[in-house]
Amino acid sequence: MIIIGEKLNGTLKKTAAAIAERDVAFVQDLAQRQVAAGASFIDVNAGTAPEREPGDLVWLVETVQEVTDTPLCLDSANPVALTAALDCVERPPLINSISGETKRIEGVLPLVPGRACGVVALLLDDNGIPKDVEGRLAVARRLLGLTRVAGVADKDVYIDPLAIAVSTRQDGALIALDTMRAIRAEAPEVRFSIGLSNISFGLPIRKVVNRVFLTLALAAGLDAAIMDPLDDSLYSEMLGAELVLGRDRFCRKYTGAFRAGRIVA
Amino acid sequence: MIIIGEKLNGTLKKTAAAIAERDVAFVQDLAQRQVAAGASFIDVNAGTAPEREPGDLVWLVETVQEVTDTPLCLDSANPVALTAALDCVERPPLINSISGETKRIEGVLPLVPGRACGVVALLLDDNGIPKDVEGRLAVARRLLGLTRVAGVADKDVYIDPLAIAVSTRQDGALIALDTMRAIRAEAPEVRFSIGLSNISFGLPIRKVVNRVFLTLALAAGLDAAIMDPLDDSLYSEMLGAELVLGRDRFCRKYTGAFRAGRIVA
Repeated sequence: MIIIGEKLNGTLKKTAAAIAERDVAFVQDLAQRQVAAGASFIDVNAGTAPEREPGDLVWLVETVQEVTDTPLCLDSANPVALTAALDCVERPPLINSISGETKRIEGVLPLVPGRACGVVALLLDDNGIPKDVEGRLAVARRLLGLTRVAGVADKDVYIDPLAIAVSTRQDGALIALDTMRAIRAEAPEVRFSIGLSNISFGLPIRKVVNRVFLTLALAAGLDAAIMDPLDDSLYSEMLGAELVLGRDRFCRKYTGAFRAGRIVA
Repeated sequence: MIIIGEKLNGTLKKTAAAIAERDVAFVQDLAQRQVAAGASFIDVNAGTAPEREPGDLVWLVETVQEVTDTPLCLDSANPVALTAALDCVERPPLINSISGETKRIEGVLPLVPGRACGVVALLLDDNGIPKDVEGRLAVARRLLGLTRVAGVADKDVYIDPLAIAVSTRQDGALIALDTMRAIRAEAPEVRFSIGLSNISFGLPIRKVVNRVFLTLALAAGLDAAIMDPLDDSLYSEMLGAELVLGRDRFCRKYTGAFRAGRIVA
């Protein structure tokens, strides 16, 4: 599975403070620890006001790139910030994200083609998040129509089916899982990514709910997750799920992680 | 989910000693703790030599029944021991187990009808455990043919699809999961039960593998598991899975277990 390390997010208090103070050591340490823990991409989200965001995001990108070759996931809805960040990335990033919303289609989608980068595509549009699988599938079809016309290969589109918190909607996870299966049947090359933690919003001991959802999403075809690679219980669940799902030849990844002290009961 | 508490098993050292010494307090304490922790059935397995087993199993049954009304799961392949135990159970038990093996069909299946009890049916026969889904489905069809002729309703048959350890066979879990789905499509009333821990045989930190498999099995239609209800990490995963799978209205079971201190990260 592709882990997109979520920790360098300016909506988190400590990271916000580090960005405001240009705390290079904090940012580089968090980047390096996520890479060491298995992240394939480092999400960078400046999380700041529109006028500050381009400068802050570029600083984040440059600061992280000084210490790691791991590619970045540029997490912004701001075309100006994304353009500035794209101009300084050293390796093809993920762009996080487009959606069916007009402003994202017009502002962000044009930045994707020709850069060999991937793009996260959220299944919502100007009417919000569709309540059922059929509605999400319709948004996915429209988005894939647009990405294909723009010259983006399906394999570079990471669809996020959007899991509504199960505390809000009893079938919040099921709709996301069924949406993935329905899209996969139509677009076998497309990839799926989720922001893992939303599923457990409003519940106690959220880690339990997050890790169960990760296992079920992997079974439904998940390719990537924006998650905390430093959470060893989640990492254990991920490797356990890949093992049980028959995706870990000779149990090598699981037993290797065990020897590295990463598997926790 | 139906939890069949696995702790009173004479193949486990402490329980074996308790049976040999007629340690009433040990057995009753373990029965009561499993009931308090959510077991719907208490598995009783004397685990002793054929000549001792009837007496030992009857002692176990009577000792447990003195302190709980929770029904028992009579865990034996010995028709004499099962008959003796059936004569003293106070509530309809599960019989664990029949299989496609001739000796089980001839020795154990005739004990099931007319007692309103359920029966665990293992998908193996005189040729061993079929290697693929089609082979297991064939055993299931034959077994369900026999139970129906014997007058046992499908809803009283708990099919164990038999998970081969993933350390032995990379697709050991997948075959079990796919077998459940294939049988359910043909026999919607039948139930599924697994002995959870075999999946992780030979691996380190087996709890991680067991709990992931439980989540995936619940998604595939599992109704019951022979498991340790005192393992709070497994219990948390079970409730988390029921929640994420949309089977916990208003999150009541999960949040109730949280308030009871049963949900652990």
